[in-house]
Amino acid sequence: MTVADLSLDKGQPETGKRLLQDVSLPAAVLHEAPLAHNLAWMQAFCAAHGASLAPHGKTTMAPALFQRQLAAGAWAITLATAPQCRAAFAHGARRLLMANQLVGQANMAIAAGLIEAGAELYVLVDSAANVRQLDAFFGARGLRLPVLVELGVPGGRCGCRDRGEVMALAEAVAQAQALELAGLEGYEGVVRAEGDDDPAAAVAAYAGTLVATLEALDAAGRLPVARPLVTASGSAWHDLIAEAFRDAGLDERVHRVMRPGCYLTHDHGLYAEAQARLLARRHDIGAGLRPALEVFAQVQSLPEPGLAIVAMGRRDVGGDRPPLALRRYREGGTARATLAVDGWRVEKLMDQHAFVALPAASDDVAVGDVVAFGISHPCLTFDKWRRLCRVDQDLAVLETLATCF
Amino acid sequence: MTVADLSLDKGQPETGKRLLQDVSLPAAVLHEAPLAHNLAWMQAFCAAHGASLAPHGKTTMAPALFQRQLAAGAWAITLATAPQCRAAFAHGARRLLMANQLVGQANMAIAAGLIEAGAELYVLVDSAANVRQLDAFFGARGLRLPVLVELGVPGGRCGCRDRGEVMALAEAVAQAQALELAGLEGYEGVVRAEGDDDPAAAVAAYAGTLVATLEALDAAGRLPVARPLVTASGSAWHDLIAEAFRDAGLDERVHRVMRPGCYLTHDHGLYAEAQARLLARRHDIGAGLRPALEVFAQVQSLPEPGLAIVAMGRRDVGGDRPPLALRRYREGGTARATLAVDGWRVEKLMDQHAFVALPAASDDVAVGDVVAFGISHPCLTFDKWRRLCRVDQDLAVLETLATCF
Repeated sequence: MTVADLSLDKGQPETGKRLLQDVSLPAAVLHEAPLAHNLAWMQAFCAAHGASLAPHGKTTMAPALFQRQLAAGAWAITLATAPQCRAAFAHGARRLLMANQLVGQANMAIAAGLIEAGAELYVLVDSAANVRQLDAFFGARGLRLPVLVELGVPGGRCGCRDRGEVMALAEAVAQAQALELAGLEGYEGVVRAEGDDDPAAAVAAYAGTLVATLEALDAAGRLPVARPLVTASGSAWHDLIAEAFRDAGLDERVHRVMRPGCYLTHDHGLYAEAQARLLARRHDIGAGLRPALEVFAQVQSLPEPGLAIVAMGRRDVGGDRPPLALRRYREGGTARATLAVDGWRVEKLMDQHAFVALPAASDDVAVGDVVAFGISHPCLTFDKWRRLCRVDQDLAVLETLATCF
Repeated sequence: MTVADLSLDKGQPETGKRLLQDVSLPAAVLHEAPLAHNLAWMQAFCAAHGASLAPHGKTTMAPALFQRQLAAGAWAITLATAPQCRAAFAHGARRLLMANQLVGQANMAIAAGLIEAGAELYVLVDSAANVRQLDAFFGARGLRLPVLVELGVPGGRCGCRDRGEVMALAEAVAQAQALELAGLEGYEGVVRAEGDDDPAAAVAAYAGTLVATLEALDAAGRLPVARPLVTASGSAWHDLIAEAFRDAGLDERVHRVMRPGCYLTHDHGLYAEAQARLLARRHDIGAGLRPALEVFAQVQSLPEPGLAIVAMGRRDVGGDRPPLALRRYREGGTARATLAVDGWRVEKLMDQHAFVALPAASDDVAVGDVVAFGISHPCLTFDKWRRLCRVDQDLAVLETLATCF
């Protein structure tokens, strides 16, 4: 081995290798079958509701996955920041929905460069101050920037707090020579039910407010574009947003756009629970999404009865909730020869280690055993990896996917 | 701009730019003056206690910082995984202390490759099973691997739980043809005081146990190397470890090695508090370390009185504790023209956003204002960035530092 052979981060090109034999663990693993299922599932779900899909790319920041999403029919890629837009554009995504405010001269310069290079880019606005800043910057570059007004909720994140603020901001956009109001955006993930209210009802009510506000903008002549957008939807309430958009009797001009991101890999935590609630609301959509992202790691120490230390930490897996032990393999074994992890419980994550409590009868556990862990919240596991391994059902590595965080 | 010009992640080469004018924010920022101070401080501290410094590289994974640590006199770089060792070696670190068990054929292959390429690599062992695995692998490659037995604590992480286990494992190492026992390792960061005991006393007692166990190994003829190592020390209790090693009356053959990592940038949270306790114990070491790592981000929305949404989230800053607003600047302003952030409090982090509660009289806050945040636990902020900006006191970018996570 020479220095030139040495790759420089933990994720390596592993295509063609066998996960249980040849790959340095821990590794982030994408299972092809559920990935392909989810990719098709959400595309079909949006189409069935008359909406386009602009999957949120910030979840994975994996260009190979953006390309599969676009090939499957996605209308655009959604991103959260100007550098994320740059990365997606550099890998072939031409239509970019930046579902966030564009702030700062350097970030505006990135966005302007993308437009000059041929991108169709939308950004959000929620303040007259930001409208003035964007107008000055893009006007000076001789560019026209399509913007969506963001409608938030009181106590929420960004966004105008009511229709009055939306209408005033639309007026400011109309006066900004370099800007063009292209529609209305919201994010139902920050809606909170009050008191004993049903969270689903609060989300549906918010979706209704979005639609009504868009109609008010249109009635006031504030939407000069051919196809004004209305867009919302993370990955927990997409059914309610899609239904509200479908059933609102919106003008045919209006382009409804959904922006879920986590659907692509789903999870064994937060979104698994959200889907259980969704399936209790909707009985016509089958079994839904399947978890596709796992982290494989090895038992490195069995220092006391009832305790395994696994070589996987907060550097490798998101910490919203502890990862969930799913299956175990002997190193070098086959994908079908799984060993039990009944009762295994991740009690603590340090930077590079997981503390796993084992049940009393765990005599067959060995140093070197490979454990597959389910994760919660894909966004915060993807961003721990520069490369992920996409595998088939035999745990052969089909592709090494780079990320652009 | 062409596609070829487009860099692919959020951290860009920013050398020569001005942080408040030209750099896409959020950005991770290293301040040169405190960085240089800390670099020299810990080197001098170890030297004054007769110990070598093998700074833990997993904190930063920044080769440019490894090179400064080595140039300042570090004896080795400590790492946590085989891929981290590979990254450090590829960037010029020849002596590598992997303060962790080496598990898995693929990871052993990385380590073997490093040794074949000229690395002096040490790894930890804490089980006979792992000793057998290492012996088989390195023996088959015709290599000899120096190992350190890890001494842990009951209820702790990895490591033998008592002297009896250490002696038995040393016996197993002696019988392993491909292994060589090079010393004893511990990590006092997982020591917990019992009941009302003083945590510092518990750490000091653990350090004493380490020294006594090393002496027992030596007395039993288990340390065949010329200079056996005894090593411990994270960044919270380094004074107690250094004192224990200094005052133990150890044989001159014994090489004492300290492994702090977070000292290099220090912080405004966990380690700031640890240092306050240290300075209360030791009155002879001046003001100690200074925080060098901050995240700069911009106000993107002021949607309600008393609330600022800042474009910085869990993708940008470690979440052990909320980041701390330190100073504010107007975008495009100078480093000296700071604005107040009295009473600013980060209440919540989402993936890409921070919710900041503002005090009642915050009329001067503007969308676009740049806020410098202090962080807690450098390890979990460094790993959010592929590149960091090292700046001078005028916030001019002196260097763009790559990381190898």
